[in-house]
Amino acid sequence: MNELMEKAKMLKSVAPRLAALTAEQKNQALIFMAEQLIASADFILEENEKDIAAGQASGLSRALLDRLQLTRQRIEEMAEGIRQVAELTDPVGEVINSWERPNGLKIEQVRVPLGVIGMIYEARPNVTVDAAALCLKTGNAVLLRGSSSAIHSNKALVHVIQQALEKSDCPADAVQLLEDTSRQTANQMFRLNGYLDVLIPRGGAQLIQSVIEQASVPVIETGVGNCHMYIDETADPQMAIALVLNGKTQRPSVCNAVETVLVHESWAKAHLQDLVTALKEKQVEIRADDKARALVPGLVPATEQDWHEEYLDLILAMKVVADVEQAIEHINRYGTKHSEAIISATEENVAKFFQQVDAAALYHNASTRFTDGFEFGFGAEIGISTQKLHARGLMGLPALTSSKYVIRGQGQIR
Amino acid sequence: MNELMEKAKMLKSVAPRLAALTAEQKNQALIFMAEQLIASADFILEENEKDIAAGQASGLSRALLDRLQLTRQRIEEMAEGIRQVAELTDPVGEVINSWERPNGLKIEQVRVPLGVIGMIYEARPNVTVDAAALCLKTGNAVLLRGSSSAIHSNKALVHVIQQALEKSDCPADAVQLLEDTSRQTANQMFRLNGYLDVLIPRGGAQLIQSVIEQASVPVIETGVGNCHMYIDETADPQMAIALVLNGKTQRPSVCNAVETVLVHESWAKAHLQDLVTALKEKQVEIRADDKARALVPGLVPATEQDWHEEYLDLILAMKVVADVEQAIEHINRYGTKHSEAIISATEENVAKFFQQVDAAALYHNASTRFTDGFEFGFGAEIGISTQKLHARGLMGLPALTSSKYVIRGQGQIR
Repeated sequence: MNELMEKAKMLKSVAPRLAALTAEQKNQALIFMAEQLIASADFILEENEKDIAAGQASGLSRALLDRLQLTRQRIEEMAEGIRQVAELTDPVGEVINSWERPNGLKIEQVRVPLGVIGMIYEARPNVTVDAAALCLKTGNAVLLRGSSSAIHSNKALVHVIQQALEKSDCPADAVQLLEDTSRQTANQMFRLNGYLDVLIPRGGAQLIQSVIEQASVPVIETGVGNCHMYIDETADPQMAIALVLNGKTQRPSVCNAVETVLVHESWAKAHLQDLVTALKEKQVEIRADDKARALVPGLVPATEQDWHEEYLDLILAMKVVADVEQAIEHINRYGTKHSEAIISATEENVAKFFQQVDAAALYHNASTRFTDGFEFGFGAEIGISTQKLHARGLMGLPALTSSKYVIRGQGQIR
Repeated sequence: MNELMEKAKMLKSVAPRLAALTAEQKNQALIFMAEQLIASADFILEENEKDIAAGQASGLSRALLDRLQLTRQRIEEMAEGIRQVAELTDPVGEVINSWERPNGLKIEQVRVPLGVIGMIYEARPNVTVDAAALCLKTGNAVLLRGSSSAIHSNKALVHVIQQALEKSDCPADAVQLLEDTSRQTANQMFRLNGYLDVLIPRGGAQLIQSVIEQASVPVIETGVGNCHMYIDETADPQMAIALVLNGKTQRPSVCNAVETVLVHESWAKAHLQDLVTALKEKQVEIRADDKARALVPGLVPATEQDWHEEYLDLILAMKVVADVEQAIEHINRYGTKHSEAIISATEENVAKFFQQVDAAALYHNASTRFTDGFEFGFGAEIGISTQKLHARGLMGLPALTSSKYVIRGQGQIR
């Protein structure tokens, strides 16, 4: 039996024991995990150093090396993250609904863990700890498949997590790392129906696309954000400029950053020059359509590709539109169903935008940057779903659960 | 452009208009649909006759021909089904959650349609009407792909539905039938991400398996039921026998019928003979393990395959187990996560069964036959999900919806 099947079987067999743990038992295991991480910092950093050295030798980009790098502070942040997860309310066991039928059957819908979760992710080793903590909190077993560039770090982290679990009531086998990072084995993992209940890919658009195309296990699609801000005719100019600057520049590398600004033509005639000036002061490169370029000379022309682009950088696409309908049409055509904003003083247009834009989070007069677990008040999040099934938008702990109906009778038949 | 792409684009383009319809507008359209079906009964029966004639010529089984056959009464039943859907509460627009953040952002989670639903199903033409009504009620556009053996009936029904929609505020394009029933086009449909938001297969295990394996569009897995009853040591003998008889014989052809009975060895020693006698009186063929055969001579031996089988017939697999743990293990190994029952007077064993059996609906002292939309009080159902994502067990109208977050601010930035 290969490593994948061996670990998948192990996870499937511990899943019922995990589902039966109390919130206290799971929280205790999380506290042990946090402590063990801190206590094992030297070991973790040594192993991480091997990945960094290999990454430097193979010419990884500085950005990737930075994501890969662990420090004593980052380990402390991971431990703190785990402690925060321990403090969240345990969703498992919640009675979602209950009712009695005329024939005396008592029906309850109870929240239960999903079972075994497969996580596929890229370089960052903190996802290893994050995913393990969130899955454990919700009573799920987890199969982690990180990238080969982080293999030493991930092995060290999972070893430390398992040590912590051994001290707890939680089975140490509940968290497994797939050490074979070949593409072939990943493809086998994507089709492990009967062992994995769900796959959650976290990473770039290409990773997510390949999981969606190849998986037969149900997938939760996360994270790609080609987000828009639409500045309506009646938008307050100062507010609009502040929101676009925040959406684009406060942290350009994240999925809820703004990638395209759509501007009503009347507003553009009066204020586009001011918006462009403000963006240029922040070193934002603008790629604009012909109408915008006619109003503000000297802008780089946008191509069709720019409307599709998730730049994750200080680049912004810009288009002048005739009305809110045209803005909605553009967003529904090019958006990735993540976060979309309208800046307007016209309630009718806001209502139309909220009704017709097909996305997980819709904002009126606020930055798209608020699509975030902590900003929503959910605490830790598993990711941001851009699909419509199961979980949409921010995924808090309940997104890692399912439900079952339990029905009590006294011999009822049909 | 082929038929599939043409219809998929049409559906995607009408979806936002459907999402904006009021409950009254949708209910009015449903009433028109019911009326038009009755008014067009002659036309529908004529077209259905073509399918029946073709089916007879190609040697379809009597059971399949019966499923295919429409009658004036069946058309009236379909119309009545639509009227019942009209009377259900519209889930769209429901505010699932709402809260305010310390920074003044007001967040609402609102229920919305899924968008465009793809239904793939087998011979029965009533699924065409059923699916159209449920999708319309929830503001979804729907692409119907029935089997080639029902093509004339399905074309006639969709034509009639579209005639009805033309009289209503609902776009007539909202319901489309894929007339090209080739396997190649079905495979293309399964991978139509960006146009279809979900695929729901309804039919036999083979159809569902092939959709799961081939689809990249998210799938809701439905309906295959290898359901068990476990008779515990303390089960009331009369109740246990009545429940097994009901689960197996009241309607053997449906997914919530019992396929295997697991019997605690002490109970078996005292009562297995009575259970077998009762089953034989109802013409049930029993396939039993060695322990059961030792207690009741003359039973057919069960093979490994019998534990996997969804007979949908008057055949029952039977196994004697040592305790509730062994019963749970058997169910989690061979079950299809549909409906499972324990008959017992020992609350501790019931609790263990409810906790550890991984299935959508768990029964104590009641028949598995209650897993049904009307029996649960949901009214019409879309199917019974045997997966854990999105919807589990009985799918009422909310299973055909998603949600979006709408956030109102006054210029908040991060």
